[in-house]
Amino acid sequence: MTTKMMTAVAFGRENKGRFVEELKALLRIPSVSTAPEHAGDVRGAAEFVAAELKRIGMENVRLIETSTAGRKGHPLVYADWLHAAPGADGKAKPTVLCYGHYDVQPAEPLDEWKSPPFEPTERDGNIYARGAVDDKGQMWMHVKALESLMAAGGGTLPVNVRVIVEGEEEVGGEGIAAFVREHGDQLKADVALVSDTEMFAPELPTLCVGLRGMIYTEIEARGAKTDLHSGMYGGAAPNPFVALAQVIAKLKDENGKILIPGFYDEVQKPTADELKAWKALPFDEEHYCATEVGSSVLTGEPGLSVQERTWARPTLDVHGMPGGFVGVGAKTVIPAKAVAKVSMRLVPDMTPAESFRRYKAYVESIAPKGVQLEVRLIHAGDPIVVSTDNSYVKAATEAMREVFGKETVFVRGGGSIPIVGDFVRELKVPTVMMGFGLPDDNLHAPNEKFHLANFHRGIESIVRFLSGVGA
Amino acid sequence: MTTKMMTAVAFGRENKGRFVEELKALLRIPSVSTAPEHAGDVRGAAEFVAAELKRIGMENVRLIETSTAGRKGHPLVYADWLHAAPGADGKAKPTVLCYGHYDVQPAEPLDEWKSPPFEPTERDGNIYARGAVDDKGQMWMHVKALESLMAAGGGTLPVNVRVIVEGEEEVGGEGIAAFVREHGDQLKADVALVSDTEMFAPELPTLCVGLRGMIYTEIEARGAKTDLHSGMYGGAAPNPFVALAQVIAKLKDENGKILIPGFYDEVQKPTADELKAWKALPFDEEHYCATEVGSSVLTGEPGLSVQERTWARPTLDVHGMPGGFVGVGAKTVIPAKAVAKVSMRLVPDMTPAESFRRYKAYVESIAPKGVQLEVRLIHAGDPIVVSTDNSYVKAATEAMREVFGKETVFVRGGGSIPIVGDFVRELKVPTVMMGFGLPDDNLHAPNEKFHLANFHRGIESIVRFLSGVGA
Repeated sequence: MTTKMMTAVAFGRENKGRFVEELKALLRIPSVSTAPEHAGDVRGAAEFVAAELKRIGMENVRLIETSTAGRKGHPLVYADWLHAAPGADGKAKPTVLCYGHYDVQPAEPLDEWKSPPFEPTERDGNIYARGAVDDKGQMWMHVKALESLMAAGGGTLPVNVRVIVEGEEEVGGEGIAAFVREHGDQLKADVALVSDTEMFAPELPTLCVGLRGMIYTEIEARGAKTDLHSGMYGGAAPNPFVALAQVIAKLKDENGKILIPGFYDEVQKPTADELKAWKALPFDEEHYCATEVGSSVLTGEPGLSVQERTWARPTLDVHGMPGGFVGVGAKTVIPAKAVAKVSMRLVPDMTPAESFRRYKAYVESIAPKGVQLEVRLIHAGDPIVVSTDNSYVKAATEAMREVFGKETVFVRGGGSIPIVGDFVRELKVPTVMMGFGLPDDNLHAPNEKFHLANFHRGIESIVRFLSGVGA
Repeated sequence: MTTKMMTAVAFGRENKGRFVEELKALLRIPSVSTAPEHAGDVRGAAEFVAAELKRIGMENVRLIETSTAGRKGHPLVYADWLHAAPGADGKAKPTVLCYGHYDVQPAEPLDEWKSPPFEPTERDGNIYARGAVDDKGQMWMHVKALESLMAAGGGTLPVNVRVIVEGEEEVGGEGIAAFVREHGDQLKADVALVSDTEMFAPELPTLCVGLRGMIYTEIEARGAKTDLHSGMYGGAAPNPFVALAQVIAKLKDENGKILIPGFYDEVQKPTADELKAWKALPFDEEHYCATEVGSSVLTGEPGLSVQERTWARPTLDVHGMPGGFVGVGAKTVIPAKAVAKVSMRLVPDMTPAESFRRYKAYVESIAPKGVQLEVRLIHAGDPIVVSTDNSYVKAATEAMREVFGKETVFVRGGGSIPIVGDFVRELKVPTVMMGFGLPDDNLHAPNEKFHLANFHRGIESIVRFLSGVGA
């Protein structure tokens, strides 16, 4: 096994140049999933990925059509290879489900790009293009690791592998969510591998072992039946914005503590080991404050580190408050209604359903006089945590340590990757989140890039991980 | 004098049909002041008014060009007749400044009009057209009252009269404000007459003797230097919307009381006579709540009548909160900035300057951690109250009682008519607000109308008022 693995690693090293050229060809396809005019390009990217999976020896390669609410979606790409020989002990090898996405964010604003977003360009050891790191480059690492292992194994892999690549990650991922829900049997696996996260710092091998969940809601406040003039009615008519402000001020105090009764009841503290590890991370709060946030002072619960606050504590944010008059100057309207878009991030062991129930009941209980409140759930995602004792996590740790020559650090993410929650809930499998992006890779922004050294280290890490899982 | 007045009244009655036809011609001109494509129509309306003032015998008729912040505005129409013979006591007759506006609101939404907005149509004793009551119809009452008096007086008037008609009332009235400020000597008068208000109820002669002032402000809250993702930064980055909500919740309590220290210090209570008069008004709170406001319950300070709350108490309203994400669905942005449009209505003897100073200092003192607040004044207007003992108010009261055969009621308005404040501040003259609109005249809305009986009663009331002032 070790010999085959080393052969696969060597194969990857020998074919570096070709791998990058192939990635460039994929990056030239403007598969912007949100843009109807690019629907053909999105399908073209799916076909490109499918053709390569077929070429390297994967089986049952096919596009799976999706639809959301009756509207045709972008296809999933599926492939598998399920013939791994049992081990010496006679036990069947595990199945790894490799997930990625081939769609990309829009490239706008175009004039801020130094080189065109769909003409991949190498500069300073990076490849610049829309989708370079999110997620075409990282998804391509999976394909190239599988190619390397196939080449070393004479058309066999050390583990069973299924591949599922979606084309709607940047537009909500409804298609794959429905497929996982309805056809989970077609994705049966023991562990999922997702490469759509980043390293904590350059040269620092990083595994993400937790994600916050979320509930995204709207509170609609209705006062008068129509818009009223604040001169004639001010002092008698209810004002939906004032009512929403009063509600929001009662949702979170000035120390960042959420005031919904019972909201923290299920919150699990990070383990002492995790807290210790987070403290050891190379993190300069002053630098973070000045360059990333750009605020004079951070907010949030006192006495907790930034990592605890953004990874292991629930939060509440308001994203926008549509309604009324938002133009230049003055219009003296008391609007009939106003909306607040409010989301909460959740951490283990909170659940979206229970959190929303508590939130809705509390908001309704504090509705100001004269205003009807309607609380709506827009979408939800489960919080995730994977134990660092998990054998797959251990295999990934080991693989990255070998490649980087450094101990792998465990972090969590403050955001959500909904598919990881779907894998837990529907497939009952943990996910190894092994990402090779860097904090300055400009995801969703102009001049997105992927550090090419990390592309190659990623391929090698995945070769070693899959070999380790199959050992 | 009484004979001349009766002759003038008779002249008005004999010429009813012609007066209405002239008004229709004026209403056919779409003088929408906010629409650049109607600039020619706006000027056409000004020329129409000027030509008629000249024809009936007014002097020094001219258009006065205006400009606001270097941008050319719509013209003022000016006219005067200043030769009123001194009274038997040798004392010079007073000068009355008649104000009106010839511009109108846009007519949209057009498909809600039962007859086209610029094709005046008579139905059920009303004339329907954009500007019918606001303010072409009421301004035309002034012109027709002057014509009637000129006809009865053989080319003379019982008092000195200046006429000023603006074309930017619906877009802020900056042009006339500047003219009053800079050329007040050209408008020297003893009293102003404004017909741009409404009667409290049909058949109820009404004088408006007070208006609330206002300060219209913006609070801009800035947190991070750029928009941030609430997954990655939620719990550490300041949220400008949450900060604004916390500020707004501290500006007004749930009983409608404004919490700015000292805000009520200069508030004058209405007199006992006023309060008694307001109580006697035909007002059904349940009906008002159900049909006008359409809310299950009114808000505002407990223990005060709707009239006190909307006419004699300051209020605070939020009109809109631009910033962040306001589209459909979910976007998890922590916006770098957000704005709240907040206005306060003021009552005598509050001043905009002192009220704004107190508000700004208080808002700045409660700025939440991590957020910079900028408090901006967008515009301001003085509160107004005219004593019912004023001789001009008495003359108006008498005139309306004669015409309607009923006691005139005194009300205030909750809104602002900025020009009335300008007349007080710059010209040092009180204003008689004698309006003939009805509460259901659909100002600024589709199917604006003017009750034709009130058009004619308005002309007669003004004939009697000007005669009374000149008696």
